[in-house]
Amino acid sequence: MPTIYLSKMRLEAFSDAVFAILMTLLVLELKTPLISDPNDSHSLLEKLASVTPKYLVGTISFVSISVIWINHYNFFHHFKLINHIILFLNVVLLLAVTFLPYPTAVIGDYPLNETAIVLYGGTMFFIYLIFSLMKLYAYKDAKMIEDDYIVDEFKMSDYIKLFISPVLYLITIAFSFLHPYFAYIGFILLPVYNVIPGRCRIR
Amino acid sequence: MPTIYLSKMRLEAFSDAVFAILMTLLVLELKTPLISDPNDSHSLLEKLASVTPKYLVGTISFVSISVIWINHYNFFHHFKLINHIILFLNVVLLLAVTFLPYPTAVIGDYPLNETAIVLYGGTMFFIYLIFSLMKLYAYKDAKMIEDDYIVDEFKMSDYIKLFISPVLYLITIAFSFLHPYFAYIGFILLPVYNVIPGRCRIR
Amino acid sequence: MPTIYLSKMRLEAFSDAVFAILMTLLVLELKTPLISDPNDSHSLLEKLASVTPKYLVGTISFVSISVIWINHYNFFHHFKLINHIILFLNVVLLLAVTFLPYPTAVIGDYPLNETAIVLYGGTMFFIYLIFSLMKLYAYKDAKMIEDDYIVDEFKMSDYIKLFISPVLYLITIAFSFLHPYFAYIGFILLPVYNVIPGRCRIR
Amino acid sequence: MPTIYLSKMRLEAFSDAVFAILMTLLVLELKTPLISDPNDSHSLLEKLASVTPKYLVGTISFVSISVIWINHYNFFHHFKLINHIILFLNVVLLLAVTFLPYPTAVIGDYPLNETAIVLYGGTMFFIYLIFSLMKLYAYKDAKMIEDDYIVDEFKMSDYIKLFISPVLYLITIAFSFLHPYFAYIGFILLPVYNVIPGRCRIR
Repeated sequence: MPTIYLSKMRLEAFSDAVFAILMTLLVLELKTPLISDPNDSHSLLEKLASVTPKYLVGTISFVSISVIWINHYNFFHHFKLINHIILFLNVVLLLAVTFLPYPTAVIGDYPLNETAIVLYGGTMFFIYLIFSLMKLYAYKDAKMIEDDYIVDEFKMSDYIKLFISPVLYLITIAFSFLHPYFAYIGFILLPVYNVIPGRCRIR
Repeated sequence: MPTIYLSKMRLEAFSDAVFAILMTLLVLELKTPLISDPNDSHSLLEKLASVTPKYLVGTISFVSISVIWINHYNFFHHFKLINHIILFLNVVLLLAVTFLPYPTAVIGDYPLNETAIVLYGGTMFFIYLIFSLMKLYAYKDAKMIEDDYIVDEFKMSDYIKLFISPVLYLITIAFSFLHPYFAYIGFILLPVYNVIPGRCRIR
Repeated sequence: MPTIYLSKMRLEAFSDAVFAILMTLLVLELKTPLISDPNDSHSLLEKLASVTPKYLVGTISFVSISVIWINHYNFFHHFKLINHIILFLNVVLLLAVTFLPYPTAVIGDYPLNETAIVLYGGTMFFIYLIFSLMKLYAYKDAKMIEDDYIVDEFKMSDYIKLFISPVLYLITIAFSFLHPYFAYIGFILLPVYNVIPGRCRIR
Repeated sequence: MPTIYLSKMRLEAFSDAVFAILMTLLVLELKTPLISDPNDSHSLLEKLASVTPKYLVGTISFVSISVIWINHYNFFHHFKLINHIILFLNVVLLLAVTFLPYPTAVIGDYPLNETAIVLYGGTMFFIYLIFSLMKLYAYKDAKMIEDDYIVDEFKMSDYIKLFISPVLYLITIAFSFLHPYFAYIGFILLPVYNVIPGRCRIR
């Protein structure tokens, strides 16, 4: 059975919609605080300031999903056509991304709980693992990938470049068992690392 | 009155948005569990594990809608233009797809209840029936369908190919009256069957 | 100040997303019924059947919004470029469409209440009035509209064709004061009338 | 490291979806009122009229987000390609826009509270500041911006044109300390000003 190639347009549009819904719903959870005197600006300020941790968790989630979206944008930018394996891997990726608000909520409520940290880190690990598997699968296929990005044969150094992001999340999880703070260093620095332009290129 | 042909672009974009919203909302239902000691990783793990059935139901729904989306992607991929009948059938299809989370929730709560099984299987039957009717209607029209997919005349074997998916859902429902487990064999295997590339082709 | 013309692509994509979200959220309101014996298929069937009115209201809303979407699709199909007036009128149209679930919910709860009927009919009147105003504004502008649809000068018969849909909703509201049932004849027949292909054409 | 340029299509589609979701969810908050006699049209009218303030707040939010969307539409219309800095600034912009329903809800509940006014005005200030920074960054880059819009060197008058919108929001906040009503003059007039076509052009 010959491989059937499809245009990538709907895959991108569909993924964009999923990312957009996730990012919008994050911020909609905030509720107006109750104050006794409606014109007392000081007590309203105090109440608003008290939900600052919620703003922070929301912002971190928003930024993490943004970074995954930017990676998705970059990654599919040099695709010409896609096939069913890529379509399938992308659905698995989106399944993990739509799951992300849940670990984020859990880690927001129990920030120093090891289970919460492993759940969050494990989801991020899984997301970047799928990206790596997609590259491993697609970067040899000249019908799918633009000529500049084609990799004829993967060398050891390519495998390292390919799997560096998921492995860094695994290392972050391992270090978190020493102290939970190590986890947060990883969870904040790794999105910064993953947003570097050109990082998804192998050669 | 001559048939008016339209570009398919908005039909695809609109359908993608409907699928994306459905798939995103499925996972957002999960809530953070309550534990007494916020740093007790063992009791958090236990609580999280106890919602595993909910994860499973969510995953099955996510996968089923994904498979319908992939079928939709493949089906409209070889359209050149659409007309109002296709526009109308697609709206009916989306109505059934947006309904799907409801039977999924019912079957999730009452997994061995025959009514729940018939409701779920009947919705899936209806969705694939609409796909079949669309093919029956469109595959003769050279203005709508790419030349490779045009069918001049439907033979008996074509009708079988055309209606195999909805009929398999009917058979699944029939067998479920012998034992509910037969239903699940069908509900899990049929999406796998329906995701096979090239299956939507008649000749 | 010269008119600035823009491509219509984002207007269409944005409108599609608004329609898609509205149609998806309609069906998500249904909740799993509670039954005492989880395997009692008869009592589950009874409970499901008792929410049939809710299905009907949901289906009518879904169909009404679909018809407006199909009109939107047809209308913008023969645009080449848009300008800021069209952009603004489209935002007003979407504001009315996003409001539609509210009159639908009210009329669902109080089907024979004259206020509910006027609220629902008035919203539909307003939506089709905006369509008519858009046509009146755009159909003379050869930079915006495809040549086939250009109207050099509007005659009396064109004005009738242009404003027939909003006027029919006004008439429906007027007749509803004789008996509420007349309103439903209009609310069900007018979408059928509005979905006729080629209806949006003036010449 | 050379700058990597990307097509703007997904940035636009993604932003459209975020705007569409925000605008749709605003109106979905309205609930059917409870009345004792289901056919009493007078008491239903009274109950519906009593939620008029909620309609107004919803409409103002809807219009404000629409104006930001129209600005976004105009702004990216004369982009040819984008780079990672624009991608990043756009994500920050969307973060602020998705936050907007929250200040709107707070100002809706406490319309004369200075804290609510500063929160709302500050968010709008921040949104238009990001637009200005994007222009400052992009308008010199001939690979990104269409030739007509290229600015070789920014003069004092250009800086004024560039930062007029955020500065007007700052002035509105300042005047609101004299009397809260001044804030509303600004919050209603500034969207009107910002929707003027061609306003985003510097030369």
